[in-house]
Amino acid sequence: MSASIHRLSGRTPSLDPMIDLVTADMNAVNAVILDRMQSQIPLIPKLAGHLIAGGGKRMRPMLTLASAKLIGYTGTRHHRLAAAVEFIHTATLLHDDVVDGSDLRRGKRTANIIWGNPASVLVGDFLFSRSFELMVEADSLKSLKILSHASAVIAEGEVNQLTAVRRVDLGEDRYLDIIGAKTAALFAAACRISAVVAERPDAEEEALDAYGRYLGIAFQLVDDAIDYTSDAGTMGKDAGDDFREGKVTLPVILAYARGSAEDRTFWKDAIEGRRSSDADFAQAIELVRATRAVDDTLARARHYGQRAIDALGPFAGGAAKDAMVEAVEFAVARAY
Amino acid sequence: MSASIHRLSGRTPSLDPMIDLVTADMNAVNAVILDRMQSQIPLIPKLAGHLIAGGGKRMRPMLTLASAKLIGYTGTRHHRLAAAVEFIHTATLLHDDVVDGSDLRRGKRTANIIWGNPASVLVGDFLFSRSFELMVEADSLKSLKILSHASAVIAEGEVNQLTAVRRVDLGEDRYLDIIGAKTAALFAAACRISAVVAERPDAEEEALDAYGRYLGIAFQLVDDAIDYTSDAGTMGKDAGDDFREGKVTLPVILAYARGSAEDRTFWKDAIEGRRSSDADFAQAIELVRATRAVDDTLARARHYGQRAIDALGPFAGGAAKDAMVEAVEFAVARAY
Repeated sequence: MSASIHRLSGRTPSLDPMIDLVTADMNAVNAVILDRMQSQIPLIPKLAGHLIAGGGKRMRPMLTLASAKLIGYTGTRHHRLAAAVEFIHTATLLHDDVVDGSDLRRGKRTANIIWGNPASVLVGDFLFSRSFELMVEADSLKSLKILSHASAVIAEGEVNQLTAVRRVDLGEDRYLDIIGAKTAALFAAACRISAVVAERPDAEEEALDAYGRYLGIAFQLVDDAIDYTSDAGTMGKDAGDDFREGKVTLPVILAYARGSAEDRTFWKDAIEGRRSSDADFAQAIELVRATRAVDDTLARARHYGQRAIDALGPFAGGAAKDAMVEAVEFAVARAY
Repeated sequence: MSASIHRLSGRTPSLDPMIDLVTADMNAVNAVILDRMQSQIPLIPKLAGHLIAGGGKRMRPMLTLASAKLIGYTGTRHHRLAAAVEFIHTATLLHDDVVDGSDLRRGKRTANIIWGNPASVLVGDFLFSRSFELMVEADSLKSLKILSHASAVIAEGEVNQLTAVRRVDLGEDRYLDIIGAKTAALFAAACRISAVVAERPDAEEEALDAYGRYLGIAFQLVDDAIDYTSDAGTMGKDAGDDFREGKVTLPVILAYARGSAEDRTFWKDAIEGRRSSDADFAQAIELVRATRAVDDTLARARHYGQRAIDALGPFAGGAAKDAMVEAVEFAVARAY
């Protein structure tokens, strides 16, 4: 397989250009993050630090910083907002792990397993509140509006997903609604707020929002595909995790929709928790192969990746734009 | 027993004057609350409505509205803020019930029992996000700062309490820190924001903050005392609930500090969950009586109640001030 979207370079796409682009800003953001996760209650920095220091890529604040570079913003108001975005994301992860009863994330034991569900819920609430304090300090009511709305959309997406749990007949539209809310809304807001603090025209705000949104969807779809393809721990996630947890993702939705009556019975049993052995997973892999469900999940991801790249059309070329294009290529190439 | 603080009237103190004072405004706030708890995801209004329609007194938004009357504010910017305060409170209750594993609140089954912990966590997150959206609409960055800080303080107080669970040697200072954060911070912010949107001098903001803070502490201490006094469901709470859950409240802290070595062993066993029978509760009642622990918890409540009333000193007399004084008298008189 090879990505069908245009490649800027002959080499394997990488996040490194984007990481290099924002190194100095990211150091400033990391200082804000470390400073503002402190509390007189020792459990708070201990628990928050477990996740925040836990090897995440800081993808969302990185997008805020890269977007600022793209539009030539040289101020620092977006540093606090980028930290706020990371706090919202971290709070969401803490609550997600409680909701899902997860015990591993990025190969480490989850906070809820180490410190219990109550502590994870409450420290998530703390980080969420702290994120709003940071936004207030950034002194941009418009950014606050965008991020508070994104937070509400994320929570709605989570509840939507919860009410869809173990429903094999979910359908692609509702699934796209869910990941649009759960994943893409914060990617979109993270990019958009740079244009807001830089006081750029609405059209640039909207272009950055679209870039983040489509990148977020592509990112999530590739994650879903990896679960049915990788033979090792790409992204700290093992193949088959989603399958064994009965998660309905796009590969399942496509394989179910395209499958025979017998296939559908298999998927229904699996999603409802009655088939989770290694042999069952091997059968699932065979069914997604036969129905081209993973290939087409990746094709969908490339489609959204292309839309993310096209959203950058109005912006002038240069190192920032190249890095943002390559970040998309990296996102959709991860499964190959 | 009788309250030692000055009474404005010969009759039993009541919340009715405050309720009457704000009726028209509260109708507007209720309309905002009902409108903004809606979502395309049906579980959200269903779960939120269970608690929001569940017979609470709307004490906190009522304080915002009464404070506005006190200072003669006639605008409507505080309506959205009052609704936001109620959403923060509701989100906190939803998460509290998950953290405590509660099954009853105000005599009704809790949301976490009916819809499960995951739904309660996520709908709490939704209401919390929605509260910030409402604050943004109220267009007051200063109110946003006050309420986002209060939210962070509440979460810190909750984590502080969590790490103190079943510690009988907690001590009065740390207990006051916890309820100052968990309960009083939102009461204080609810009152203060009216002075903010009305653009009143700092001194009035601070006076209203003090009123709310002291009222909140008094309110909580009386709640704690009721658990060791009432023989019926005052406030929908049965005597002995705190005791059976091993909660360390001020009556326990005082009875433990003042008790014999034998008493302390009893309290340690009780708080650590090894004594929760009716006979054990009868013994607890006897110990708090013998050590005057409930009487003195109520004396502390009257002290804070008096400070709340004194905080109103700078404001002109009239129906609003009378109602706010009587609300304090009502709060401290509930246990009699």
